[in-house]
Amino acid sequence: MPYFDAASSAPPHPVARQALLAALDEGWGDPARLYREGRRARLLLDAARQTAADAVGCRPDELVFTASGTRAVHQGIAGALAGRRRVGRGLVVSAVEHSSVLHAATAHTVAGGTVTEVGVDRTGRVAPTAYADALRGSAEPVALACLQSANHEVGTEQPVADVAEVCRAAGVPLLVDAAQSLGWGRVEGGWSLLTASAHKWGGPAGVGLLVVRKGVRFAPQGPVDERESGRSAGFENIPAIVAAAASLRAVRAEAESEALRLRGLVDRIRTRVPELVPDVEVVGDPTRRLPHLVTFSCLYVDGESLLHGLDRAEFAVSSGSSCTSSTLTPSHVLRAMGVLSEGNVRVSLPVGTTEADVELFLELLPGIVSAVRAKLGAPTGRESASVRGPRADGAAPSGVADAPGAQSSAAADAAGGGAEDEGGVGAGGGVESRGGAGADAREEAPALTVDALGKRCPLPVIELAKVIEDVPVGAVVAVLADDDAARLDIPAWCDMRGQEYVGERAAQRGAAYWVRRR
Amino acid sequence: MPYFDAASSAPPHPVARQALLAALDEGWGDPARLYREGRRARLLLDAARQTAADAVGCRPDELVFTASGTRAVHQGIAGALAGRRRVGRGLVVSAVEHSSVLHAATAHTVAGGTVTEVGVDRTGRVAPTAYADALRGSAEPVALACLQSANHEVGTEQPVADVAEVCRAAGVPLLVDAAQSLGWGRVEGGWSLLTASAHKWGGPAGVGLLVVRKGVRFAPQGPVDERESGRSAGFENIPAIVAAAASLRAVRAEAESEALRLRGLVDRIRTRVPELVPDVEVVGDPTRRLPHLVTFSCLYVDGESLLHGLDRAEFAVSSGSSCTSSTLTPSHVLRAMGVLSEGNVRVSLPVGTTEADVELFLELLPGIVSAVRAKLGAPTGRESASVRGPRADGAAPSGVADAPGAQSSAAADAAGGGAEDEGGVGAGGGVESRGGAGADAREEAPALTVDALGKRCPLPVIELAKVIEDVPVGAVVAVLADDDAARLDIPAWCDMRGQEYVGERAAQRGAAYWVRRR
Repeated sequence: MPYFDAASSAPPHPVARQALLAALDEGWGDPARLYREGRRARLLLDAARQTAADAVGCRPDELVFTASGTRAVHQGIAGALAGRRRVGRGLVVSAVEHSSVLHAATAHTVAGGTVTEVGVDRTGRVAPTAYADALRGSAEPVALACLQSANHEVGTEQPVADVAEVCRAAGVPLLVDAAQSLGWGRVEGGWSLLTASAHKWGGPAGVGLLVVRKGVRFAPQGPVDERESGRSAGFENIPAIVAAAASLRAVRAEAESEALRLRGLVDRIRTRVPELVPDVEVVGDPTRRLPHLVTFSCLYVDGESLLHGLDRAEFAVSSGSSCTSSTLTPSHVLRAMGVLSEGNVRVSLPVGTTEADVELFLELLPGIVSAVRAKLGAPTGRESASVRGPRADGAAPSGVADAPGAQSSAAADAAGGGAEDEGGVGAGGGVESRGGAGADAREEAPALTVDALGKRCPLPVIELAKVIEDVPVGAVVAVLADDDAARLDIPAWCDMRGQEYVGERAAQRGAAYWVRRR
Repeated sequence: MPYFDAASSAPPHPVARQALLAALDEGWGDPARLYREGRRARLLLDAARQTAADAVGCRPDELVFTASGTRAVHQGIAGALAGRRRVGRGLVVSAVEHSSVLHAATAHTVAGGTVTEVGVDRTGRVAPTAYADALRGSAEPVALACLQSANHEVGTEQPVADVAEVCRAAGVPLLVDAAQSLGWGRVEGGWSLLTASAHKWGGPAGVGLLVVRKGVRFAPQGPVDERESGRSAGFENIPAIVAAAASLRAVRAEAESEALRLRGLVDRIRTRVPELVPDVEVVGDPTRRLPHLVTFSCLYVDGESLLHGLDRAEFAVSSGSSCTSSTLTPSHVLRAMGVLSEGNVRVSLPVGTTEADVELFLELLPGIVSAVRAKLGAPTGRESASVRGPRADGAAPSGVADAPGAQSSAAADAAGGGAEDEGGVGAGGGVESRGGAGADAREEAPALTVDALGKRCPLPVIELAKVIEDVPVGAVVAVLADDDAARLDIPAWCDMRGQEYVGERAAQRGAAYWVRRR
């Protein structure tokens, strides 16, 4: 029963379990007390702090334990902002941070601060120059910048050391959210604060790390007490802390060899899924990435059905699609990258994942995807053939047009050729301009309007795909949709299919997305 | 090796251990996910919530799990205050709340709110009328009132139901900190919010409860996420939550019989310690109290030495004295009660404490106390005899003067008699008034000044006791001291010894405490 969602929560490492058990007997006392049980708890806590500090590469007195990675982020950002309040109230974050960072940024905005969001490229990576621009261009002097070590949804590693250098030059502390990467290794570079979460590396839930380098101004916010240097209030969860530290050491000991092994399995998924499943976009940086994580999106598939299908096949994965039970909007990461969000699957392999599990996944995935597509009435032969050129069966792997490199530009070329095969299919509506596939500055009326109001992802895209050839080349189809995912997926579909995305127009309900047939 | 500090942290209940282990295997997944591991985690979380809600006597959707009892208090107070911000920013708390409540109150003051502190009587109990006065008399309309169910340092139960009624009549929600009592039973009465802490009842660390009754306005503060109804951010610690709920049910099942049994052992300590150890004040309400907790203070003893002595005898207890390694000020609870803080010992018996352990404690305590007193050069025969009347050996148990009832008034009577035995002992300084033991409005110069600057509790009191008979009856001894405990312990000593505490006077360093010999 393969569990492929380590990036949400890793199964407990055996060392975590053993350490938790042992510390449950030895570490339940109050470490602030003078008696034996208290001293014993204090010794365990001190030793765990030393172990965790060694793994991070910091001094033990720079590291406190929090109740979760989320809490570490919230407390770290609030304390660092307050510590430099006199400098200014500017906060710089990347657009693809974990929601805990973005929630803290929202709270900062609500409290009157200024937040600047740094965008990413299509791989999800920030540019250090963009941080430099944000530090210079902020409406208010910047008190703190935040950057993840690696993205939690697409695996892309961020240029932390370079951004830290940019921040250092500007005199701004950098907080690094290392939740996804700390189990794999230290975060290099001159960062000022660092946060992490134990259950992401196989430690227990209930433990986060907050590291504040000596010399960094820090003023803990909210009510505090004497615990954890006054930086994290509440009775210390020592058994879990001991288990967190012990398991971090254990996963680090095997990190190098395991990273190599899992990277091979992930590369296999990256290469073979687009070969096995038509109309798939693999997202994230192809090389500068976490070793265990790969993400792809499947056209004409809804995330929830795909997750259910995989779950029935006993695969646990997560999705950045909207229309999963926990959200109705697509992942902010995919949105910031500008990539397809429908049918999104994140595979994150826990330590110890076998080759056989991955092979089984690759064997079962194509059937699960095509079942979902069939149920949704996704276009297969006709639209696919027209766009991709001569291909008898849209459901069969093409092996060329669907390869990772064949995204926007290759698909556009194919579309250019394929579109010639068909003539004016006689769509309804008054078509004014048929002047070729180039962008036309005039706002002609759409040749056809698709009403997808009330329909959830991926239906608006499927409706569009079904009618695109009903209008002449150069004519516009307008898709009326009120599902947020359409804003991301219609342009992404155009990119994949070589159609021209004209833009979004106001509508009485939802929005109208204009697409010109090429 | 008897552990008598359950009120700090109870040893894990066997059920907590078993449940934690089982849930570690089953409950590490993300309960927000749709796949098997997520659903399993969600089921465990839902079941734990139902169990905890049953124990509290609330609906499951009124209860969220937090990362600790402290966090429950901080989040509960902040959310309740914010929910009624439009009404006003007044907060009413008792003077003997847990530090987490007082820290939240301080944060509220810093943020511009108003805090009214309700005092307690000498047993540590609030009066409902005092809450009514505070609600009426607050400088700002009151948004929230807080009251513990029972005091964590002296065991006194608070009149929660009556105070809740007072609050209801005023339209003010009442938050009850039930950290010390929830394992023993539900909190009765019409409270609005309730907080608790699992490691106080034998559950694991890392779990608090926050209950917000339907209809109570509540606006969670700080960055939030979708977890725990948006009231407690961060990945849920499900194994610990499961263990917390299971152990709460288990301790409740045995609460009635165990309370009866422990109450017997506590009564034995309450009765026998003052018989066995001279100059002891047992504090807290004698009957309306937690079943497992008893607190007493020993004159002429420093808390740290006493804790060390008990620890060497393998007894783990805590102390509200200053001069323990964790604090230099006496407990705010003892201060609010106006009782002696020196040589303070809190005994809180965990479930399962044996009679033999308690008997051993009673056997060893007298020797430990007298060893500390001897080391400190505490007065024995002379001063003791003079104050207590004809008693050959001050160190021997008197069985009468030291009984609980023999506090202020009895001691004062004794002093009235005893003081006659001695004449003018020829103390230095010009004594103007010798006119009896009654308070004199005129400010005569002290007959003797004791310089106890730089000396820590209990030395200023010991110095005072050593010289009190060096001045004539009616003359004043001034004690110069800069240790905070003196402010509490010198009046308390006067009370116990039947001397007149004149008051505190300004001094170049510290303060001068004036005591008139009776």
